[in-house]
Amino acid sequence: MTKQDGKFFGRGIADCKGDLFVRLTALKNYLDEYGQPPVHIKFLVEGAEEIASQGLDDYFKQHSELFQSDLIIWESGTKNERGQLRITGGNKGISCFEISADSASRNLHSSNSAIIDGALWHLIDGISSLHQHGKISVAGFYDNITAPTLRAKNLAHKMYFSSAKLSKLYQLQYPFLQGDNEEKIKEAYLFAPSFNIEGISGGYEGASVKTVLPAHGGAKFDMRLVPGQDPADVADKVATQLYNNGFGDLKVDYTMGVTAYRSDMDAPLIKELIATAQTVYGGTDSVEVLPTSAGTGPSYNFNHYLHAPIAAIGIGNPNSGAHAPNENVTEADYLSGIEVITQFFANLSAHTRADDHSITA
Amino acid sequence: MTKQDGKFFGRGIADCKGDLFVRLTALKNYLDEYGQPPVHIKFLVEGAEEIASQGLDDYFKQHSELFQSDLIIWESGTKNERGQLRITGGNKGISCFEISADSASRNLHSSNSAIIDGALWHLIDGISSLHQHGKISVAGFYDNITAPTLRAKNLAHKMYFSSAKLSKLYQLQYPFLQGDNEEKIKEAYLFAPSFNIEGISGGYEGASVKTVLPAHGGAKFDMRLVPGQDPADVADKVATQLYNNGFGDLKVDYTMGVTAYRSDMDAPLIKELIATAQTVYGGTDSVEVLPTSAGTGPSYNFNHYLHAPIAAIGIGNPNSGAHAPNENVTEADYLSGIEVITQFFANLSAHTRADDHSITA
Repeated sequence: MTKQDGKFFGRGIADCKGDLFVRLTALKNYLDEYGQPPVHIKFLVEGAEEIASQGLDDYFKQHSELFQSDLIIWESGTKNERGQLRITGGNKGISCFEISADSASRNLHSSNSAIIDGALWHLIDGISSLHQHGKISVAGFYDNITAPTLRAKNLAHKMYFSSAKLSKLYQLQYPFLQGDNEEKIKEAYLFAPSFNIEGISGGYEGASVKTVLPAHGGAKFDMRLVPGQDPADVADKVATQLYNNGFGDLKVDYTMGVTAYRSDMDAPLIKELIATAQTVYGGTDSVEVLPTSAGTGPSYNFNHYLHAPIAAIGIGNPNSGAHAPNENVTEADYLSGIEVITQFFANLSAHTRADDHSITA
Repeated sequence: MTKQDGKFFGRGIADCKGDLFVRLTALKNYLDEYGQPPVHIKFLVEGAEEIASQGLDDYFKQHSELFQSDLIIWESGTKNERGQLRITGGNKGISCFEISADSASRNLHSSNSAIIDGALWHLIDGISSLHQHGKISVAGFYDNITAPTLRAKNLAHKMYFSSAKLSKLYQLQYPFLQGDNEEKIKEAYLFAPSFNIEGISGGYEGASVKTVLPAHGGAKFDMRLVPGQDPADVADKVATQLYNNGFGDLKVDYTMGVTAYRSDMDAPLIKELIATAQTVYGGTDSVEVLPTSAGTGPSYNFNHYLHAPIAAIGIGNPNSGAHAPNENVTEADYLSGIEVITQFFANLSAHTRADDHSITA
């Protein structure tokens, strides 16, 4: 780690080693002053988040009773571009699968295309049959979805997000799926499931021309899920829909999945955390509250096994560059982060006894 | 070149250096016996056939008067699996082009897929919209096509071709586009235009999962064409159809093309060549006559500039392995090949004068 111009630089310092040190330092500061913790504090440090925490479920099945808590403070968080501290509850889920087509044991000469159907036609026709006008046409896909509450929608509308800025930054060529309705865009970003083609591959992909009739093709997908959807179940529904659309020859291979979890940001201990942050950071408008992130993480598993609400709070900034070689946090955010957690402990101790609550941080 | 078990082995010996030596040896034999050629004999040796003879058109534009002829004997040919010598007139054409989609300046995180449309959806939906149930739905694509004559169809039906054998050899997973109607399959193989996806590529194509929303995707195509279709024109029609189907954002890049040519196998000098071969190889049933090959070659250019019918005759066999390291011809076929051409010269001289006809071999 190096320090320069008021910033700490180091791999993982924003996502999320810095946050862990903030928690530990806050606890040390609190213990130095008060001698004993305000409530039970439990730490669960897991190193496989970047590869989808696939072992976490098994771990919880064996050890979840160790971490039963009243609140889970999550490891990550960042200020938005407006300078507000983002406190986020939960994640979207994800279902990852592949669809593949095999039309022959090996590629044929393309002169056979007048009489033989190739894998790639079946593949793209099958995939194409699964959506219409941006809507996913997989029977049952939208069933049982937990609609966001009015409160959650209102939080979404207040989110700092500019579709125009995003469009300019990435030189987007198509209109947003929600048109230019900024509120609908924000709602969809946080609450709508989606269907993404991560990649597609088949046949000859080099320069110029090669007259092969490809025997094989495949595509990779991720569906971002919302509460109420099961990752393996939606992949099954895709397979069923392909079959019903006349593409039973296509193979669907489920890769992995994560279930969605959306926090109730009005849960008492989350409201307490938000209030503490607002005090430290400078008032109501200094904090942005989101009921979920648009990304995926294992918050469902935490809630499912530990039965506690979840809030993520952290020390990143819009230029932290998570995963980049120059990943950084500011010293000011680091110190504020410590202050929020220390103050939160103090607030808790003011109106609780140690055995009333447990917190997993 | 090596000789073993009655076969000559050598790179290009079947496709098509052996054929050139057959012609030269036949001419030498004829000259040794008769002192002067039966008609004008012209040789055009071109070395770029495997890369689509793209320079041939320019060459003919400057020098076609040197090669004006009454018959063009083409360089290639092979016996079929039934042991018949195949004499073929002309080739299918081809139109090669790419269709690509660009949705952003770079890949986005796939959490954006709830609000942003990706390149790959547009690409596959656009491509998929260009055909239905194996029929190409590009307006004007089938216009102006020269239907095969009844005689040409009859020749096609007599072609040695087993869809069952092909299906077993390649373990084909789908039925033939013409179902199990063997006559229709043979007709389509020789006379139907087709639309093949050579390859498709976009986004993350490696193992497991990578949650990118791809900014770019592309696919390569070849359309096999028949007489009456123009290669650049069909690519234009694809672009127009994409636009009309709502995919004007997709880019169509024409790579290259070759026009189709189908010979009239009843042209007098071709009939003479066929009759000569039947005599040498052992009767009517020893020769299979096809008005076109299912593959592509520059026969159109030869006919267009030289105004002569074309027939391909050669010395290959079903196991010649053109382009393979063990490419071979049998000594028997080599000698028969020489005999056919020598005899053809003799037959011509029996009822013609040297200045009546020219042959480009």
